[in-house]
Amino acid sequence: MADFDLVIREGRVGTAAESFVCDVGVRGGRIAALGHELGKGEHEINARGRLVLPGGIDGHCHLAQPLPDGSEMADGFDTGTLSAACGGTTTVVPFAFQNRGQSIRAAVNDYHALANGRAYVDYAFHLIVTDPTPSALGQELPALIADGYTSFKIYMTYDALKLNDRQILDVLWLARRERAMTMVHCENHDVIAWFTERLETLGRSAPKYHAVSRPSVGEGEATQRAVSYAELLEVPILVVHVSSREAADEIRRAQSRGLRIFAETCPQYLFLTASDLDLPGRDGARCICSPPPRDKSHHAAIWTGLANGTFAVFSSDHSPFSMTAPRGKLIHGADAPFWKIPNGIPGLETRLPLLLSEGVLKGRISLEQFVALTATNCARIYGIPRKGSIAIGADADIVVWNTDREVRIGNDMLHHAADYTPYEGMVVSAWPDVVLSRGEVMVEGGKPLVGPGRGQFLRCDRPEPARPMDLGTGPAMH
Amino acid sequence: MADFDLVIREGRVGTAAESFVCDVGVRGGRIAALGHELGKGEHEINARGRLVLPGGIDGHCHLAQPLPDGSEMADGFDTGTLSAACGGTTTVVPFAFQNRGQSIRAAVNDYHALANGRAYVDYAFHLIVTDPTPSALGQELPALIADGYTSFKIYMTYDALKLNDRQILDVLWLARRERAMTMVHCENHDVIAWFTERLETLGRSAPKYHAVSRPSVGEGEATQRAVSYAELLEVPILVVHVSSREAADEIRRAQSRGLRIFAETCPQYLFLTASDLDLPGRDGARCICSPPPRDKSHHAAIWTGLANGTFAVFSSDHSPFSMTAPRGKLIHGADAPFWKIPNGIPGLETRLPLLLSEGVLKGRISLEQFVALTATNCARIYGIPRKGSIAIGADADIVVWNTDREVRIGNDMLHHAADYTPYEGMVVSAWPDVVLSRGEVMVEGGKPLVGPGRGQFLRCDRPEPARPMDLGTGPAMH
Amino acid sequence: MADFDLVIREGRVGTAAESFVCDVGVRGGRIAALGHELGKGEHEINARGRLVLPGGIDGHCHLAQPLPDGSEMADGFDTGTLSAACGGTTTVVPFAFQNRGQSIRAAVNDYHALANGRAYVDYAFHLIVTDPTPSALGQELPALIADGYTSFKIYMTYDALKLNDRQILDVLWLARRERAMTMVHCENHDVIAWFTERLETLGRSAPKYHAVSRPSVGEGEATQRAVSYAELLEVPILVVHVSSREAADEIRRAQSRGLRIFAETCPQYLFLTASDLDLPGRDGARCICSPPPRDKSHHAAIWTGLANGTFAVFSSDHSPFSMTAPRGKLIHGADAPFWKIPNGIPGLETRLPLLLSEGVLKGRISLEQFVALTATNCARIYGIPRKGSIAIGADADIVVWNTDREVRIGNDMLHHAADYTPYEGMVVSAWPDVVLSRGEVMVEGGKPLVGPGRGQFLRCDRPEPARPMDLGTGPAMH
Amino acid sequence: MADFDLVIREGRVGTAAESFVCDVGVRGGRIAALGHELGKGEHEINARGRLVLPGGIDGHCHLAQPLPDGSEMADGFDTGTLSAACGGTTTVVPFAFQNRGQSIRAAVNDYHALANGRAYVDYAFHLIVTDPTPSALGQELPALIADGYTSFKIYMTYDALKLNDRQILDVLWLARRERAMTMVHCENHDVIAWFTERLETLGRSAPKYHAVSRPSVGEGEATQRAVSYAELLEVPILVVHVSSREAADEIRRAQSRGLRIFAETCPQYLFLTASDLDLPGRDGARCICSPPPRDKSHHAAIWTGLANGTFAVFSSDHSPFSMTAPRGKLIHGADAPFWKIPNGIPGLETRLPLLLSEGVLKGRISLEQFVALTATNCARIYGIPRKGSIAIGADADIVVWNTDREVRIGNDMLHHAADYTPYEGMVVSAWPDVVLSRGEVMVEGGKPLVGPGRGQFLRCDRPEPARPMDLGTGPAMH
Repeated sequence: MADFDLVIREGRVGTAAESFVCDVGVRGGRIAALGHELGKGEHEINARGRLVLPGGIDGHCHLAQPLPDGSEMADGFDTGTLSAACGGTTTVVPFAFQNRGQSIRAAVNDYHALANGRAYVDYAFHLIVTDPTPSALGQELPALIADGYTSFKIYMTYDALKLNDRQILDVLWLARRERAMTMVHCENHDVIAWFTERLETLGRSAPKYHAVSRPSVGEGEATQRAVSYAELLEVPILVVHVSSREAADEIRRAQSRGLRIFAETCPQYLFLTASDLDLPGRDGARCICSPPPRDKSHHAAIWTGLANGTFAVFSSDHSPFSMTAPRGKLIHGADAPFWKIPNGIPGLETRLPLLLSEGVLKGRISLEQFVALTATNCARIYGIPRKGSIAIGADADIVVWNTDREVRIGNDMLHHAADYTPYEGMVVSAWPDVVLSRGEVMVEGGKPLVGPGRGQFLRCDRPEPARPMDLGTGPAMH
Repeated sequence: MADFDLVIREGRVGTAAESFVCDVGVRGGRIAALGHELGKGEHEINARGRLVLPGGIDGHCHLAQPLPDGSEMADGFDTGTLSAACGGTTTVVPFAFQNRGQSIRAAVNDYHALANGRAYVDYAFHLIVTDPTPSALGQELPALIADGYTSFKIYMTYDALKLNDRQILDVLWLARRERAMTMVHCENHDVIAWFTERLETLGRSAPKYHAVSRPSVGEGEATQRAVSYAELLEVPILVVHVSSREAADEIRRAQSRGLRIFAETCPQYLFLTASDLDLPGRDGARCICSPPPRDKSHHAAIWTGLANGTFAVFSSDHSPFSMTAPRGKLIHGADAPFWKIPNGIPGLETRLPLLLSEGVLKGRISLEQFVALTATNCARIYGIPRKGSIAIGADADIVVWNTDREVRIGNDMLHHAADYTPYEGMVVSAWPDVVLSRGEVMVEGGKPLVGPGRGQFLRCDRPEPARPMDLGTGPAMH
Repeated sequence: MADFDLVIREGRVGTAAESFVCDVGVRGGRIAALGHELGKGEHEINARGRLVLPGGIDGHCHLAQPLPDGSEMADGFDTGTLSAACGGTTTVVPFAFQNRGQSIRAAVNDYHALANGRAYVDYAFHLIVTDPTPSALGQELPALIADGYTSFKIYMTYDALKLNDRQILDVLWLARRERAMTMVHCENHDVIAWFTERLETLGRSAPKYHAVSRPSVGEGEATQRAVSYAELLEVPILVVHVSSREAADEIRRAQSRGLRIFAETCPQYLFLTASDLDLPGRDGARCICSPPPRDKSHHAAIWTGLANGTFAVFSSDHSPFSMTAPRGKLIHGADAPFWKIPNGIPGLETRLPLLLSEGVLKGRISLEQFVALTATNCARIYGIPRKGSIAIGADADIVVWNTDREVRIGNDMLHHAADYTPYEGMVVSAWPDVVLSRGEVMVEGGKPLVGPGRGQFLRCDRPEPARPMDLGTGPAMH
Repeated sequence: MADFDLVIREGRVGTAAESFVCDVGVRGGRIAALGHELGKGEHEINARGRLVLPGGIDGHCHLAQPLPDGSEMADGFDTGTLSAACGGTTTVVPFAFQNRGQSIRAAVNDYHALANGRAYVDYAFHLIVTDPTPSALGQELPALIADGYTSFKIYMTYDALKLNDRQILDVLWLARRERAMTMVHCENHDVIAWFTERLETLGRSAPKYHAVSRPSVGEGEATQRAVSYAELLEVPILVVHVSSREAADEIRRAQSRGLRIFAETCPQYLFLTASDLDLPGRDGARCICSPPPRDKSHHAAIWTGLANGTFAVFSSDHSPFSMTAPRGKLIHGADAPFWKIPNGIPGLETRLPLLLSEGVLKGRISLEQFVALTATNCARIYGIPRKGSIAIGADADIVVWNTDREVRIGNDMLHHAADYTPYEGMVVSAWPDVVLSRGEVMVEGGKPLVGPGRGQFLRCDRPEPARPMDLGTGPAMH
């Protein structure tokens, strides 16, 4: 009789703290043992010479999310999570989106219906709060947090999504009381609206003007504003998808004075530039996302922030729209102005290969930082149970990586349903060989071995770091 | 026959550049000559051993301004400008206030009616823009600017006054096009509203909570936001009445990276603290103003900013309400909560003695900085013609200062109509001996010699420094 | 037959990445397995409800180090490492000190003689380079680095120790070429000498003037200087025993712009103040160390730096001199001026309890940060093999911590040979229950179970992070 | 009988505070009156439509200075001051250089001998202190300061000139006690020596490597160090010839926290780049000066510093060596390595036209800033009596500027004795029409009208701003 259901032999196991060569023993879907010369496994994988890392967590991706303008995401939970798995990501945290006027609980129920039976990998939900009514703040959210939905995203821009600043304060105050984590999309709404209107007046509607309409100074401004609110209410926040030097600088400045401000960035802010929006016809629409890709000097700032710890999380912000789908990128016509083009790019499958290859293998960040950025920190900050590390008792979500061959990225090799990848033609030196979820081999040699529906919903704990910052500033208020 | 109408003999004449001993010859109300042993004057003043400085300009004071809540300022143009004159201020720039729905031109006309025949000293008007409609921006303001109303103030807080951020961008864009100067009251409205509501809920309504409701972090936030908008549209602004280290730091940071951001501070941010609001009964109401007085560490930051050039202007923000008047500080009752107490303190008469005494005589700033901060810079930044310096051709608005005697400030010696001064009991070592306006002796030995109505309205030029900042950042937009 | 030599059951195992409850199996002195329900151990420890952490590494301590002025450290390798063990530290890295004129190899040999047969715990050596002759730089150091002495400390102050700046550049250039790690004692020598001379002239020689003679501005200056040299030569350094806000700020600034600057701090900069030097008689001599203890505002800055990642290492800088020993603190007489009092305080045994108690248990840092700061980072930065984590293959240097009882620190309970502890009377809530070195129980219930001589010398690897910083700045030079 | 010796009619008179159109009346070599329609002058100049500015003060120029390596400056007091006058500079402050071992008084006497009877314009002396012996500090310097030599320059680099840091502290302490002004050449000596040696080893000796050998990080480092010493001793300093972003940033940082740190920059840091050293043969030697010219990004930082007040003084650092003179740039041979090429460029005559044209006329700085930077501030900071402004009682050192014609700079039009100008071919839009010294027309239409020897020596006052900075930091020391 075997000692383990599965043993992964002699790979280099990496955690956020270190790496070492050992066997990994899996039992009942969990990591049961780490050791040398572990007993037999029913199934065994020889990982000698390869990296054995925790499966990635994508803490920021959009799947099957209903959109106010009628456009439709290319990926539901099926193709989205399959794509995730094939790229080495074994947990996703997409968003249950509250339409204004809707109860958040109803949004969660709707979203469960979309996920149920379709996911390949495990998933938790962030809540998108667009309508923080007294009952939402007073009853629904506390109950939802208690039920395992412990993080929510709020927007400082988009007409259909944004909260005003008073509402932001209300939400942060709730987050403080309930020890939840608030993710903030920091771009200055009025700046975008003003610039867009002006560009429209000037007849400048091509995709490249999308980047002009969302200047980095506006991102820095909104970041500073969100930081100020977090400082005033002494509550941590996480600034999502940071794209610019200005925003990174504000975050660093806040951390330097001791505030608990977390930050996330994404591949598009390392590998795409504003000039990727400047293509013939509407081809530039492919890389329209928000914040927009910037330029090389911003890339350098983002790499620095990854290396020096400014960023805690590296996510995809996967938000896939096909160019050719009727309700895709060009839903509003082949000549649609940039402000009518759905925002977002696909990226679930390419996130980890890009960062492992360009970050770790090129010496910009360490292997430990990679693990922390793509898995461990995300689990901690959002309270995702049993995920994010190769540790005893953790779910056996594990990826065996091949870092010895070159892979030229092409959309035909990817598993999402979008009809393009913005990284077409890039060559990376890392790709998952074997991907395990709860001990089950999901992908081997690039080939999916399982079907949809095996992914399970994850109730999250209150995030550990969400305790209030004690700055001693506000006795009168607290 | 005399060579001059007036000669001031052998005083130490100070400008923003230097000081030197000479005679000042006045003819036709203007400074006609500076020199040694000038010819005879019909009238002569012996200023030997005394300072001869340009009359102060108070670039920020409120006189006879109608208030949405029915409260009434203690000073109209008569007592207000008399008080100014007696304190060494010979030009005031109060505010023509646009009620929402009202045309700005109408507000200007109304305000002229209030000033006409009442002022002791010359005056220009800033406009307060509360309703930047297309016609206000497109027609009225350009015409008013051309007519000599070249600066306007906008508010980021107060329900009855605030612009939203989109409107702020509109106003700044106009200011850029028309080369006008925009003054911004930078406090975060939502923060104040949120804290006030919470304090109300907690039953904390005493005057001291006024300071709690307007935290310095909120002032810093709003300052940074206004700076970002100025940076985006490449247009100078002036941040008024800076009270805190956070706001001063944001301004300095902006200046350090080359932005043309001007800033103003006031005596209350050097000499009053939040604890002045914490008095028995409603006595704390006397020092309620916005931003509120802070504490000693903020005072130090403000002094540093005066000494190192962060601040360009030192004004009073005179906004007088009597404690005992029926429509004064306690219009809403002896137990009115802090949010129903009119904001503002009197300060026109004490501004210059306080800064000359505590700043120059104590070695914190130079005499030249005093002149620049209290007169010259103000004239330049707002385009006030012929004012702000002892220079050939300038109006003979001149103060001969006594810096050899101690004066204990008391409300009984002041000429405003407010029934208190927040500086009661402070001892200063400087007080005006002689105050001249356009060559006429208005005050001598503390005694007014003229009557109301001699003050004239001043049409302002477009401010010199209002040219756009050329940062080369925005070809697509401009 | 047992599966393991030792099994530690069901403790909460902590690494720099996470913590989880599991068994730890030890075989042949190494950690052989982590898992649930591991097989039997010949010896077993029940750790349920207790923390199981890697044994501390003290990367900065002085033992039996010969001193130029004839004074004598209280601890040799015997009492020093016993004290370390009893405080939960299982690896020490003291210093092999090169006297000027001496070959470094000879210094290493001498130091081995002092350590050999005396140490309780394992040890590596840093080299102290005081005489970087061409042969030292060209032959000796490369050979020593290859032999496992991969880090060295240099001094910017002390007449007998300091390098001049040219020599510092030479040493950093060598460190870059050989991928070694340079530790820098950053205090400005000329400032100290100048202030000391002046204090002597003024007759101010009491211990409290020690702190006056070493102002924090001088520490900040030297830190910035060392950082500049590291930046120019694109090589990492580690700034040791940072005591002040100024120095911490310089380090943070360097890290913020992407430089690989590591930093260390010590308990004395969190728990002692300059006023601890201001005691009757010469009692203040007890807390004389360099840099000196500062004040509460500096403590706050150091805590912030621990929490936000500015500091990588937390060490003791143990440097023990007895007050009553003839060659101890008062070797130069009961009235010796501060500049003749040997610098240093004991701290090996109290380091970990203080930080675990005040840092982790009071919520200022996380448990993972504690492990990283006290063990894991040190092993990485100095290349100490098999130490610093509870990981498969690592040496079984493990501490089982009790965090449930209060311990009042007193010198009588400590195992060093110094006759005082600066922390006398402080109460901590954490103390080691069991301390293992390579699987052997060294200490149990506060009682040492082993004798001297079992500690082994550790040859270090070239530190992983010592690769040159690629800033692209210097093609002409490199 | 005329009222004045000279009247300049109706020019636009500029001061550091403002500009206005008036007549200037001169009597006895001094400015006796400013006014409209002044009485007759024996001599009259019609300045209508032209700028009437104070003659420039060049606070940093080297004339006839003996050099340790035997090289010889192209200009003595005759050609140097003639060149100054023709470029609109009416006061120069060159350096009396102390050879080590020499008394400073002797150096002053020697230097007077060189100046006496040769100067065209008035002059004061800075002292260069290279040997701060106890008698120099205790007797000579206090006596010299009392005699009107109130500023001295010290060097942080050059073997023959540099002080060590202890000596710098001694000199600053003296400056504090005696209220003198210390100018500091801030470059890190050891960095330069180390890089130079390494370049020599690599065989890289062409002029272009001069810039490589003096990296901007080393300038920033030395600046920060000097600032730290000024901060510790609470005494102002002036950092000379700032060339780089790093140094400008350090200065700004110091000013921002309230320190009285003054700074100077020069034309070569706005208009020359490191690539001007990369010319065929030894032509690059022409632009060798220290600090070296940097690149465009540094230019931008310097312009920002001029505009926002970081810099107080704009000087030439005129230090002329001819390319063809036997003891000029190539004294050590046509193939001399860069480290044997005398440092310095000529610039006395071009300084003001360059800044007026590129700075004021192109809108980067105001006319008032120009006057402050080139004349007024220099007079204040160094205590130069009666110079630096158009003010009553000031010496009538006045320049009437033509800003309406284009002038192409060529060495043949300049009056220095150097055989080249680094600005050959640059076109400026401003050139002096008339230059007056103490009321005498020295230059008219570019033509000198006077001979050598009329320039007078100026005893300086203790600089006003040299009062100690009161930071309250050091009661124990002061």
